[in-house]
Amino acid sequence: MSGGPGEGGGIGAGAGDGRGSSWPDPAEGADAPLDALSGGVGGPAALGPLLATVLDALETGATRRGGPLPPGRPADLAALVDRALAAAEGPDALARLTELLAHGAADPADPFCAAHLHCPPLAVAAAADLAVSALNPSQDSWDQAPAATALETALLAELAALVGYDPARAAGVVTSGGTESNLMGLMLARDQKLDGIVELDGLLGLPAGVRPRIFASRAAHFSVQRAAALLGLGERAVVPVDVDRELRMDPVALERALAEASWAGHTPVAVVATAGTTDTGAVDPLPAAAELAARYDAWLHVDAAYGGGALLSDRLAPLLDGIERADSVSLDWHKLGWQPAAAGVFLVRHAETYVSLARRAAYLNPADDEQAGYPSLLGLSLRTTRRSDAFKLAVTLRTLGRAGLGRLVDACHDLARSAADAVRAEPELELHAEPVLTALLFRYLPAGPDSRQLDVDPAALDRVNAELRRELLRGGRAVVGRTELPGEGPGRVRLKLTLLNPHTTPAEVAALIGEVVRAGRETWRWVGR
Amino acid sequence: MSGGPGEGGGIGAGAGDGRGSSWPDPAEGADAPLDALSGGVGGPAALGPLLATVLDALETGATRRGGPLPPGRPADLAALVDRALAAAEGPDALARLTELLAHGAADPADPFCAAHLHCPPLAVAAAADLAVSALNPSQDSWDQAPAATALETALLAELAALVGYDPARAAGVVTSGGTESNLMGLMLARDQKLDGIVELDGLLGLPAGVRPRIFASRAAHFSVQRAAALLGLGERAVVPVDVDRELRMDPVALERALAEASWAGHTPVAVVATAGTTDTGAVDPLPAAAELAARYDAWLHVDAAYGGGALLSDRLAPLLDGIERADSVSLDWHKLGWQPAAAGVFLVRHAETYVSLARRAAYLNPADDEQAGYPSLLGLSLRTTRRSDAFKLAVTLRTLGRAGLGRLVDACHDLARSAADAVRAEPELELHAEPVLTALLFRYLPAGPDSRQLDVDPAALDRVNAELRRELLRGGRAVVGRTELPGEGPGRVRLKLTLLNPHTTPAEVAALIGEVVRAGRETWRWVGR
Repeated sequence: MSGGPGEGGGIGAGAGDGRGSSWPDPAEGADAPLDALSGGVGGPAALGPLLATVLDALETGATRRGGPLPPGRPADLAALVDRALAAAEGPDALARLTELLAHGAADPADPFCAAHLHCPPLAVAAAADLAVSALNPSQDSWDQAPAATALETALLAELAALVGYDPARAAGVVTSGGTESNLMGLMLARDQKLDGIVELDGLLGLPAGVRPRIFASRAAHFSVQRAAALLGLGERAVVPVDVDRELRMDPVALERALAEASWAGHTPVAVVATAGTTDTGAVDPLPAAAELAARYDAWLHVDAAYGGGALLSDRLAPLLDGIERADSVSLDWHKLGWQPAAAGVFLVRHAETYVSLARRAAYLNPADDEQAGYPSLLGLSLRTTRRSDAFKLAVTLRTLGRAGLGRLVDACHDLARSAADAVRAEPELELHAEPVLTALLFRYLPAGPDSRQLDVDPAALDRVNAELRRELLRGGRAVVGRTELPGEGPGRVRLKLTLLNPHTTPAEVAALIGEVVRAGRETWRWVGR
Repeated sequence: MSGGPGEGGGIGAGAGDGRGSSWPDPAEGADAPLDALSGGVGGPAALGPLLATVLDALETGATRRGGPLPPGRPADLAALVDRALAAAEGPDALARLTELLAHGAADPADPFCAAHLHCPPLAVAAAADLAVSALNPSQDSWDQAPAATALETALLAELAALVGYDPARAAGVVTSGGTESNLMGLMLARDQKLDGIVELDGLLGLPAGVRPRIFASRAAHFSVQRAAALLGLGERAVVPVDVDRELRMDPVALERALAEASWAGHTPVAVVATAGTTDTGAVDPLPAAAELAARYDAWLHVDAAYGGGALLSDRLAPLLDGIERADSVSLDWHKLGWQPAAAGVFLVRHAETYVSLARRAAYLNPADDEQAGYPSLLGLSLRTTRRSDAFKLAVTLRTLGRAGLGRLVDACHDLARSAADAVRAEPELELHAEPVLTALLFRYLPAGPDSRQLDVDPAALDRVNAELRRELLRGGRAVVGRTELPGEGPGRVRLKLTLLNPHTTPAEVAALIGEVVRAGRETWRWVGR
């Protein structure tokens, strides 16, 4: 934990001597009530001037940044943050720290920031999110969120229909993102597919010799392994299934893996199919995965955290045909949905499979309240307190409609195709594969297509690509992604563009690619030889 | 899933026929760009008018509500929400749905809304949260959140010092709340205390006969059981420890439970001590829990989700003496910290115990980036995409200081004591125990103190208390809590006030208590006899 409570003191400064603090007390002598609340009839009046302060500071910070991210090394920025934290106090803290946040942002609204599944939010979604911050509804009981409870329920029914589920039979919840949604899918799979009552007696209550297995492609998100570890199944319970060049799961390999596990007496708990891998946007063959999961009595979870956005586009939606056969699905509207984080969604095809999460807490959802018509979402979520992240999404869907959002998806898809064209046209870059959704992998080749014939060391290619990316970051010039292809050994580092800004133009993407080439040349001079 | 995509269509309406949608396309013909982004230099200008819309709608909605929550039954409100969703479209959706959210809120800024650990946010915290929504930093890699990464690290060092940890040795992360923090503490406990590499090989890789046990009081939060189920240990791995009348863990009972488990050959994985139970705010004896956990080589997790706020108050901080001996701690600043949800914190005393969560993802934290000085918070969190919930908290701490926040804590504590006085003064109410922090339990006794002598059926007492609470909700008159004391059988239902609004006056609390008595009398007429 670097930093610490800087010289200017800090809230923990006096902890050693009875938690008295040397932190100054800015409330004394201030004009306006610093402790005004955001709710109630008076909340909006208290918020007004503070929001004006925030907007000013956001603009000043973005102008000072003047690019996709601030130039410099992480340590320089950390020192700046420590100084700002030490200096900020009282009524000025909001302006100073907001300006710092904006100045020190990697801003996905900048066309040169295109690394991750980290979208620039729509203004309307950010504005809607303010209403949630101000009112603070919490979805763990009706009496903390009367309208928000009904609104989340209605929204999830619509999203279930979007996936192709029967909304009357489906269930779901808004989550913190794909990692939580994947965990939920695998938890329900574990609890449904293993004999015994795992949620009560634990895995150690199972008969000896049970070996649960989860099948996911080598390009599936690492949260699958992480969920297996958290659930007590262990990372090694995840059987990696081979992928093709585009990082799409090979259905023959899946069939082989399931058959081998079955012969070995293992229990196939779940198949995880990815609809939109993080790196290439590849969509696994969903109908084949559904077929095989059914044949081996495994739960099918479809991780559509990225690709779920394709459901908004008439052009791209057919890529996800078969998703409606999944037992559970992850969707993330803070990716191809332009929501501020978090806006994840978890859905199950059949509500009754949700049973192992059901909980009764005397203080939140007593049986007689439910009998009296007070609905409770508590048993649908892994969390207790839960912000109404459904609200901004409902407002966005109503403001733009599916068609309006679909146009944004298509614009990003078009942009990725034009980026692929630009990469292909550049001799010093090598395109990995055509984009499926809005992401593409490529790398810098110092001697152009001759790099491989000239026997350029693959480890040096990895170094130059990793280093040129950091060079772009340090210069505040661009934020591009970096990843590694599945497999072993050197030569697997690739750069990545994830196009999520629908207002970026093809010319801007071409300029960004030009920056990558320039940085590659500069870097190769001192990395390569 | 009630509701569904109302008559007006909805985004999922056409899902059956190839996902073409009947949803109208409001973007056509609108004047302002509905798809403007919140980030970049132009974001603030796009946000300005939308925020004005939100503030107007919040005020209109709150005025229309005219009380702590809207009168009516949940089904009435759900119908209203369905109608609003069907009608809202295009540029008006933000105003209409925000007004609905405000009108349909249980607003903790209203003095008559005092049921749960559901705080009214500070305006400055809600305003800071807008900056986060607009810029969308994500804490899973430095290049999605340069300043926010450094800021969270610095904030956590301060909070570690506040708890009494050595910030140079501690580690932690901002979480979605106590439930996630408790899960993390128990996961690390499981992975540290069980032989073998559970995160890789799973619990089924352990030698036969291992029986992990977690010790928590009967008044500990239900998330402890839930975490045990999720982690594959099973709910029955949680050994309930007896409590005193105030719901404080009995250290003699803890010692007995640990000794019995030890004799039976079970593995004591963790002791969970609660610093501020949900219902009474009771603080378990932390030094004794630390002593016993150390003696039995169990992990000590302190759930200070509620009581952590006491660290801000010179008057109340001594209640938490001993917390600095915990291996891990949960804190929630969306409870006694006046933050919009979520603002949870998880801390460990020694960073090296965090090891089982460490993950390397080629696209997020490759080794060479870390060697080059790019820090990564990925291995500190269960989530991947992660909103910067640290920012609003840092701004609040800088605006009000520990002293300013401590005054708010003390104001709520004073309010709870005045509420207890008012309950005690009312013959038809029975106070359960003096408040420790800001919550108190009590119940309505139809015949006053004579109720028990008159042999009033304890089940009827439960019914009248449960029903009077719903009567207050239906009338839009008040939101009070309801819970059950630990144990078996009837007579355990209690009402609860959780005072988290520092601007509420003792007179308002007295009026709220008067409402409870009135509702009790009305309800008893038709429930009791």
